[in-house]
Amino acid sequence: MDRIEATYYVETPYPLADAAAVMAGEQSSGTFVTIPGETEELKMHYAARVEQIEELEVVSQPSLSGEQLHFEKYYRGTITISWSLANFGTNLPVLCSTLMGNLYELRQFTGIKLIDVQLPDNYTSHFRGPKFGIRGTAELISNEAKTPLVGTIIKPSVGLTIADTADLVKKLTEADIDFIKDDELMGSTLNSPFADRVQAIMEVLNRHQDKTGKKVMYAFNISDEMDNMLRNYDTIVKAGGSCAMVSLYSVGLTAVKRIADIGHLTIHGHRNGWGMLNRHPLLGVSFSAYQKLWRLAGVDQLHVNGIRNKFWESDESVVSSIKACLTPMAGVLPALPVLSSGQWGGQAIDTYKLTQTTDYLYLAGGGIMAHPGGISGGVSAIKQAWGAAVAGLTLDEATQKYPAVQQAVEKFGKSK
Amino acid sequence: MDRIEATYYVETPYPLADAAAVMAGEQSSGTFVTIPGETEELKMHYAARVEQIEELEVVSQPSLSGEQLHFEKYYRGTITISWSLANFGTNLPVLCSTLMGNLYELRQFTGIKLIDVQLPDNYTSHFRGPKFGIRGTAELISNEAKTPLVGTIIKPSVGLTIADTADLVKKLTEADIDFIKDDELMGSTLNSPFADRVQAIMEVLNRHQDKTGKKVMYAFNISDEMDNMLRNYDTIVKAGGSCAMVSLYSVGLTAVKRIADIGHLTIHGHRNGWGMLNRHPLLGVSFSAYQKLWRLAGVDQLHVNGIRNKFWESDESVVSSIKACLTPMAGVLPALPVLSSGQWGGQAIDTYKLTQTTDYLYLAGGGIMAHPGGISGGVSAIKQAWGAAVAGLTLDEATQKYPAVQQAVEKFGKSK
Repeated sequence: MDRIEATYYVETPYPLADAAAVMAGEQSSGTFVTIPGETEELKMHYAARVEQIEELEVVSQPSLSGEQLHFEKYYRGTITISWSLANFGTNLPVLCSTLMGNLYELRQFTGIKLIDVQLPDNYTSHFRGPKFGIRGTAELISNEAKTPLVGTIIKPSVGLTIADTADLVKKLTEADIDFIKDDELMGSTLNSPFADRVQAIMEVLNRHQDKTGKKVMYAFNISDEMDNMLRNYDTIVKAGGSCAMVSLYSVGLTAVKRIADIGHLTIHGHRNGWGMLNRHPLLGVSFSAYQKLWRLAGVDQLHVNGIRNKFWESDESVVSSIKACLTPMAGVLPALPVLSSGQWGGQAIDTYKLTQTTDYLYLAGGGIMAHPGGISGGVSAIKQAWGAAVAGLTLDEATQKYPAVQQAVEKFGKSK
Repeated sequence: MDRIEATYYVETPYPLADAAAVMAGEQSSGTFVTIPGETEELKMHYAARVEQIEELEVVSQPSLSGEQLHFEKYYRGTITISWSLANFGTNLPVLCSTLMGNLYELRQFTGIKLIDVQLPDNYTSHFRGPKFGIRGTAELISNEAKTPLVGTIIKPSVGLTIADTADLVKKLTEADIDFIKDDELMGSTLNSPFADRVQAIMEVLNRHQDKTGKKVMYAFNISDEMDNMLRNYDTIVKAGGSCAMVSLYSVGLTAVKRIADIGHLTIHGHRNGWGMLNRHPLLGVSFSAYQKLWRLAGVDQLHVNGIRNKFWESDESVVSSIKACLTPMAGVLPALPVLSSGQWGGQAIDTYKLTQTTDYLYLAGGGIMAHPGGISGGVSAIKQAWGAAVAGLTLDEATQKYPAVQQAVEKFGKSK
């Protein structure tokens, strides 16, 4: 296969075949009249091609405003379009503009969402992808590290002094945590300049490693201008760190790939802003599709929300994102799915049931920091809950067996 | 003022004040329980603050899915939140994560759209902004260049050989065009490698300049990986070009700023993908708000769609985007609004009426290429239509006065 195929879930007042032709036209020659120079031969090689159309439900009200006219019926269905690899080579931003560009503006559609993209092996094999991925991330922590890796976010997100942050990191390492991260709102602030924060935290982590052999992974948020990101990255490398965090949508595909290409640190991909691109069922892009581009760019760890999260996303959608991250692409490693948002261990059993894997980075903020048994109780509760999940216990059984899990259920269980 | 203020249009089943508190919490400490370390003093300095709430309509159906429960009423209104500058310094990606981050995921909202952001002067003055802007762009073309600058897009977008492209460029320059651009789907293809395309096109443009003194501006699409973008940029500079085009959302804020910072070329900001972020009235971000970040990043020319465009966007929304690009920010130039999408000159009169300015880059694809009088007729029709607009003529009067305008109305007028 030398073509990239994308499938869209659409809604349109026009026959699906006509709407599909408009879409393919916009994403090839893109003007409103036939123009000289657009020969049949040229079209054959470079034009987008409609591969498949599947009709689904018919509705009477449009999901999004489009044509100003009123229609009786709006047709929903899927449209699959393909492009020749010759159109973009291995240029990810141009692929992105092709898959997710002007087509969202088309008035002929009252709904359009990219739900999947098929990348041929002879395309993906040009990319290194995640350098570390799941196993590489675990091994950087310790040879004995097992998934799920348990992590937390420094809270309060913004405002803690460096001394307080280092002190909190120390407590977290003593509680046997695997991973800690900056909040995405935390870059470099007056009372916590980036380089100083890295020094102070890595001193704690390096000392802990000398003592125990375990290198707790800390994801420093390097998101910034390009030169600052490169300098921040170097600062982490020189201090002996193992992870850099990037806010994918705030930083963008080009700079994220530049950073991931360096290859000394694991890349923790935070997906804040994602709701804009996905929250409407007939607008934007599914995470299953988009994560392929971020993996090609080299992101090792990808946020996917969590089961019974505090946000709006359904468990079904979360499970679909998890499975996508774990699905192999030729030559490109899976990304380690990062579970977060209102997680405290209680979701471990259902998460395992739904996905049959422990290959996660499981992040809990309040679930660890506010556990009645302290930080150590919070970490234990999560590890025990996952142990129970793999052993096939119910949450009730886990509660009876593990006092820390019982405390967590009492404190956090009511909010769910 | 040492705070950044953002105003959101929201919908929620909860009292607006409660929902606003959730939003401010998520965008500061961001967890689901109160945690140790979050002192009052720290909150005072670093927490987001709810500045204002305005109640608007009440509706019975949610715009987006949120809480799984059913509610009788959903309250709409605006919520204004502020953050201390100390939280992010001049880090644009972290500002972006703060303004447009996790808050779209909150289940307490069934609609959330960033509609405006107020950046204090002592913030914007840290940024150079567009190096060239409106006047700088015009002057690079010629000392006599007047707005609106008239431009076109190479069509077919993808597939033309370099020789055919150069030939088309020659015809366009002979028709006295001001500006030409690559299509956003065109990067570097097998039959049109980037560097060779630049050489061939700049040879034509440089020769034209030698003859006429006018340097037609060509926006080469440099969107790609970081190192390729830098190399592409250099290729343009060395060949004597004056403009680089970037696909804003495909490339991202960090890399776009890196490119704009160089300062040798004007930066043409294409907004393909924008529909995802704006098409729903209660999701995403308004262009008026977002264009401020792109201007801070240094983009000189910004796409804003056009009056009676071929896309879904209303004229009212287009006018609002135009006015936003032209509104001064302390220390930062306005961006040149780029009008495009189904433009052929006929919209000039209404565009001028609605905005009272000619400070535009006016792009027509089919409107120029498929004009009955050829390319030259297409360019003339647009320039004449704008002349008529400024002179206060109606379209009928312009049609009677200018044969090229009449031909355009006959060919394209029916599609509107």
